Amino acid sequence: MLKESVIEAIKQIVGSENVQLEETDLYAYGYDASPEFYHLPEMVVAPGSKEEIIQILAICRTNHIAIVARGSGSNLSGGTVPVEGGLVMLFTRMNKILEFDKQNLTLTVEPGVITKAINQHIAASGLFFPPDPGSMQISTIGGNISENSGGLRALKYGVIKDYILGLEVVLSNGDVLQTGGKLTKDVAGLDLTQLMVGSEGTLGIITKAILKLMPVPETNKTMIATYRSMEAAAQSVSDIIAAKITPATMEFLDQVTIKAVEDFAHVGLPTDAAAMLLIQQDGHPREIDEDIKTMAKVCRDGDAIDVQVAKDEAEGAKLMAARRTALSALARVKPTTILEDATVPRSEIAALVKFVNETAKKYNLYIGTFGHAGDGNMHPTCLTDLRDEDEIKRVHLAFDEIYQKTIELGGTVTGEHGVGLAKLPYLPWKLGRAGMRADQAIKKALDPDNILNPQKLYGEEVMNHD
Amino acid sequence: MLKESVIEAIKQIVGSENVQLEETDLYAYGYDASPEFYHLPEMVVAPGSKEEIIQILAICRTNHIAIVARGSGSNLSGGTVPVEGGLVMLFTRMNKILEFDKQNLTLTVEPGVITKAINQHIAASGLFFPPDPGSMQISTIGGNISENSGGLRALKYGVIKDYILGLEVVLSNGDVLQTGGKLTKDVAGLDLTQLMVGSEGTLGIITKAILKLMPVPETNKTMIATYRSMEAAAQSVSDIIAAKITPATMEFLDQVTIKAVEDFAHVGLPTDAAAMLLIQQDGHPREIDEDIKTMAKVCRDGDAIDVQVAKDEAEGAKLMAARRTALSALARVKPTTILEDATVPRSEIAALVKFVNETAKKYNLYIGTFGHAGDGNMHPTCLTDLRDEDEIKRVHLAFDEIYQKTIELGGTVTGEHGVGLAKLPYLPWKLGRAGMRADQAIKKALDPDNILNPQKLYGEEVMNHD
Repeated sequence: MLKESVIEAIKQIVGSENVQLEETDLYAYGYDASPEFYHLPEMVVAPGSKEEIIQILAICRTNHIAIVARGSGSNLSGGTVPVEGGLVMLFTRMNKILEFDKQNLTLTVEPGVITKAINQHIAASGLFFPPDPGSMQISTIGGNISENSGGLRALKYGVIKDYILGLEVVLSNGDVLQTGGKLTKDVAGLDLTQLMVGSEGTLGIITKAILKLMPVPETNKTMIATYRSMEAAAQSVSDIIAAKITPATMEFLDQVTIKAVEDFAHVGLPTDAAAMLLIQQDGHPREIDEDIKTMAKVCRDGDAIDVQVAKDEAEGAKLMAARRTALSALARVKPTTILEDATVPRSEIAALVKFVNETAKKYNLYIGTFGHAGDGNMHPTCLTDLRDEDEIKRVHLAFDEIYQKTIELGGTVTGEHGVGLAKLPYLPWKLGRAGMRADQAIKKALDPDNILNPQKLYGEEVMNHD
Repeated sequence: MLKESVIEAIKQIVGSENVQLEETDLYAYGYDASPEFYHLPEMVVAPGSKEEIIQILAICRTNHIAIVARGSGSNLSGGTVPVEGGLVMLFTRMNKILEFDKQNLTLTVEPGVITKAINQHIAASGLFFPPDPGSMQISTIGGNISENSGGLRALKYGVIKDYILGLEVVLSNGDVLQTGGKLTKDVAGLDLTQLMVGSEGTLGIITKAILKLMPVPETNKTMIATYRSMEAAAQSVSDIIAAKITPATMEFLDQVTIKAVEDFAHVGLPTDAAAMLLIQQDGHPREIDEDIKTMAKVCRDGDAIDVQVAKDEAEGAKLMAARRTALSALARVKPTTILEDATVPRSEIAALVKFVNETAKKYNLYIGTFGHAGDGNMHPTCLTDLRDEDEIKRVHLAFDEIYQKTIELGGTVTGEHGVGLAKLPYLPWKLGRAGMRADQAIKKALDPDNILNPQKLYGEEVMNHD
């Protein structure tokens, strides 16, 4: 329970209209977009400036109150669930686009800006912000930075971290870091920008970001290849990369996902195929034509049943939009959707997908797999029911095996959804004891009182390891 | 002085043939490629494996002996000068290319591999490793990673950090980190890969790296634009970026540099021009042609006296090779060359270059400026004589002002050469007290005994700040 004096002090800082304390209001901030984690915060606070954040941090430090920074709560690993109660911090008042610098191709934003608004804001300029996480319609850029979000264009364009040039970050001791700048090169000191990206709100509170923009590619072209086997589809992914082509997007959908998407979006997907690849290339028209031609040949040589090239950008966009519905489409099938995020070297996609299917069969589960095949980033998605305790137990056993296999294949336990609570048990498998210890040492160095999103990323033992 | 027992113990570990102790042998390891810093190490040791490194670290920790990891010593900021004596560690025995993975487009290497050997090794594959630091003929990949080196292709392709997918690092406590992997996406834990890149050997000893490769661009084209004023040249840089073109290379040379290079390389550079831009674009032939045409127009519209397009790749390569001689060419003019590394947002290049010239005049110095204009990364190079104490004093006063101006323009005190000893006095100007404190806290967390390259990056006060 927060002390009355603490509540009053925080109200004084931000104004009582920017504080929520009623359980009915707090309820919405106890969970994120993952189904299995829930904990009620004690207070929700929306500061209006970094100065207010510094003051709030001072109070929390003195009183050992946890602070969880939260964007729109669309994250998929329990990362913003306030497991120790305390404060959930919102950035709804810090949601301005501060500066569009056309000469240096940068956009400076506050953390509460909705990701989609970024490209809307600069649409007329011929520039764009490449990262396109699936949640971008509702997610905030602050949340995307904290999770180092990926998206469909990551194969060619990279992920969020590749587009963050600088940050303003308030540390738990009240220090304000100004990292990086409108600079394409900067080696002055440790790379704290990259350390903060993906640190899931555990090292500091991001209050400003300088984003890197790129020229919009001239045009794009989209194609679909369908397969009788998932292995053949996965092989085509490797073959395309081996043919020295880097498409903007190369998505994989298995039959479960194809059917769910087609049922939902009605775009004419081949529901009898075992797997399909959805590929988009962008750039100079001549180059795209050549790439699409080469990729079509690679797919056909690789036993694709059928290869179709979208007739224009609009048709391509329709297909991409359909792919974006995959999660929602699957979610309609059963009450609970457990979306996973296993990532392997792209040469191992076939092995991973095969193992997922064998494991689903073994545990009698319904798992659809889709994902960013070009990145080796797959999302096996279990359609289940949280109320069915026996099945949920089997879900966990199955994913334990799937992540063990992922690691064996040289992969990682999360490609873009973050560790949060969901992946914490698996994290030591990837990092080893040495990696966990190093991460924990850095956490202790920058947040010695462990008030920033505690119990995440480093585990509960963070404060008492040897 | 190292104790006899320490010397014997280290000889036991690596074999006495891999230890150097004679002053005549040690001499070469007391300096790097910057002229102003020198300190003799007490021992030079070349371990053959990470196991040997772990044992050496244990001895150094117990006995408080400094260890400076050193590639080829081509670094330009005093970063590998062993200011506390102790050990200089070489990687001449850990210089193998371990694996070329054509499916995942990765190359796994030991730190002692010469950077140039990387592209030689994979030349036949149609893949390449884009980073091309000026020193690549002699520098090691371990050194490049530790310095986060840049190069001539950084505008389009980025710098070293963009091509390091994973690292094996021995920490000072003997823990072995395995970061990242053959993965294009990985958000499991803090990004220790990027934290290690550019940390100048202060956080751990790199023993392995997984490098990302890219398909070789189909072809390239090179052009030169010459100007009556440096401001006009700098303006063309901004105008080209504003025209949504990202050339692979966009280099700036002032008249002092043009003359020195022409004198040295005889490639027909326009020695009467106040400044020139050397621009190379690569990719699909059709796209290149359009880009070169657009850039030529932008330069002409921007008051270029003359624009010349190289007739073929060979002529382009000759021009690029001439540019690469800039430092050596300038170094011939006077006994001492002090090469600086000021980096600004690219919109501020003209302002920076103008200020450099005014400052040179003010202090009666001979400064040539060249650099990676597209990155805003300029190398004002003072041609002087270390024996002329009065002039050297003026050099320092001039560069104090130049770096102050760089910071005012939103820039940084080092774009690609690292902090080392040379930039340490300026570092707080960029990072602020908060940034220095955060860096120091991380150093203390990962190297609590301060044995890894002490007195660099964090300053002497690292171990006793409040």
